[in-house]
Amino acid sequence: MKKHLLGITMGCPVGIGPEIILRLHRELATNSEYYPVVLGDPEILARCRQELGIELDLVEWRPGAVVEDGAVNVLPLTRLDRELVWGRPTAATGRAMIAYIEEAVRLCRTGVLAGMVTCPIAKVALKMAGSLEPGHTEMLARLTSADEYAMMMAGHRLRVTLVTIHVSLGQVIALLTPEKIFRLIDLTGRSLQRDFGLVRPRLAVAGLNPHAGEEGMFGDEEERLIGPAVSMALDRGWLVTGPLPPDTVFHRAVSGEYDAVICMYHDQGLIPFKLLHFEDGVNVTLGLPIVRTSVDHGTAYDIAGRGLGSAASLAAAFMLAGEIAGNRRRFAER
Amino acid sequence: MKKHLLGITMGCPVGIGPEIILRLHRELATNSEYYPVVLGDPEILARCRQELGIELDLVEWRPGAVVEDGAVNVLPLTRLDRELVWGRPTAATGRAMIAYIEEAVRLCRTGVLAGMVTCPIAKVALKMAGSLEPGHTEMLARLTSADEYAMMMAGHRLRVTLVTIHVSLGQVIALLTPEKIFRLIDLTGRSLQRDFGLVRPRLAVAGLNPHAGEEGMFGDEEERLIGPAVSMALDRGWLVTGPLPPDTVFHRAVSGEYDAVICMYHDQGLIPFKLLHFEDGVNVTLGLPIVRTSVDHGTAYDIAGRGLGSAASLAAAFMLAGEIAGNRRRFAER
Repeated sequence: MKKHLLGITMGCPVGIGPEIILRLHRELATNSEYYPVVLGDPEILARCRQELGIELDLVEWRPGAVVEDGAVNVLPLTRLDRELVWGRPTAATGRAMIAYIEEAVRLCRTGVLAGMVTCPIAKVALKMAGSLEPGHTEMLARLTSADEYAMMMAGHRLRVTLVTIHVSLGQVIALLTPEKIFRLIDLTGRSLQRDFGLVRPRLAVAGLNPHAGEEGMFGDEEERLIGPAVSMALDRGWLVTGPLPPDTVFHRAVSGEYDAVICMYHDQGLIPFKLLHFEDGVNVTLGLPIVRTSVDHGTAYDIAGRGLGSAASLAAAFMLAGEIAGNRRRFAER
Repeated sequence: MKKHLLGITMGCPVGIGPEIILRLHRELATNSEYYPVVLGDPEILARCRQELGIELDLVEWRPGAVVEDGAVNVLPLTRLDRELVWGRPTAATGRAMIAYIEEAVRLCRTGVLAGMVTCPIAKVALKMAGSLEPGHTEMLARLTSADEYAMMMAGHRLRVTLVTIHVSLGQVIALLTPEKIFRLIDLTGRSLQRDFGLVRPRLAVAGLNPHAGEEGMFGDEEERLIGPAVSMALDRGWLVTGPLPPDTVFHRAVSGEYDAVICMYHDQGLIPFKLLHFEDGVNVTLGLPIVRTSVDHGTAYDIAGRGLGSAASLAAAFMLAGEIAGNRRRFAER
């Protein structure tokens, strides 16, 4: 069976990335259609393996080469062993983690990799390396020239997308427009078709206010902003319902009524998502020409290198990247 | 064993109350220390029993009398059989449901009842009866002259209280003050001691913004409003933590780290609560001199009288009222 390769970027070299990558490999099913190659630093992985007493072969891999089954196949992009102090990022480690991402995008675009899975990076480390980008998503959008993209949090019980993300609650209303909400409904629907293999996705749109405003008694945003967006999406042919009372829509989605919930603000989506998928949640970037999933946690500098990190989210992100890559192939063949 | 009596108010006579009361009685454990008496309408209960083919004895009960084990014991306060059209409230049914509540409060205050459990009423029916009160909680506060009270949503996995409730999301920030947040922390703590038997309750206070503001990057309400309230509560001796990131605090509470989460707005608390306790959530009124719990759903006019209502929430509310009554007795004896 031909193996499809998924690139795993090592993330911040002094964060939790190296150890969860090693742990993932120990648990890998060898009969999978997908196999990981790590874009990172073989010296740091070797040192992490030694410090944690993990028995695994580490081999260097180059694009075009065959991967060695059962081993950690690493594309060596840096050799930073001397820089390594767990939890202490530097300009050099910051530049390294950017290089892993850039090379992964390049190899996805040339077809060497079927997709990429990212380990966490930190804003502080990006800054040290002179980057002004706030995080992965924006960097990937620039590198792939994507003009419309969004983050989805995906788990086996619940999928959510967010109209607004990292803004204060007081700013949310001013940032909502029917056009913006519609575009996210549309992007979520297209991604459920192309990436998740759902022919006719059932979309739910959460209201903003308690009881979705209860006929305007608690706010008019449902009528003024969200309702018009839902109408536009209905006109476009989507199977979409809303605005729905936020306190019951997630129960309904989890019960199987909806395939995704479009949320108005960060905590509206992430409170239920993290309650259900605290360990195994996956962050998927919708709208990119390449397949990209990510772990749903940070660099964990406080515990990095000590063998305490769980690989559950990375394992889920790896599996989902494979599923999305397969679904996209089948979608293109239709 | 002496039975303690808990009053169940029948709620709106043409709503879901009568049928869930009958269903509760069918499932009652006969060896419980607590036994229900219904404050309501024997004619309507008899008709509901007949229409749904439920086999249960219905007996009339008067304060001071012994209850008949295994039967539905009803204190007859109205006889409205001729008024009954399921799902169609009238001025008479509205006045009836108010009478059930008033009598239950009176019998709690005189010690005949150990507590009361309320079936749902509707605002529209209150209005028809000429009442301007928005719901149970305000009515009970007035009837018991309680000056400080709050709603808690309680389940076996999660308990939440809310600083603001039925207001639009855009109004939330203007309604938050350190004093108000502190008072709710304090009331929640006292109730966990007196009503839930926790000697040293562990309280979590949710932030308002994503990541609890992340050092002021997404809003200053944590620093300006919530932090000072937590400091006041710490000074008062409470074991309290916060403001905590809203998207992880509920996972932590459910994992056993906290006994209750004090929430800033309706959906912040009710999204996770209803996800975990959609069927068996209980609404408890904190701060009243009497014990009061309530079902966590509405009158369900659309399905009332058809035998479709679940008694899970009423059963949980009945059990919890008994537990609270017992805990209050033990607390008073300390």
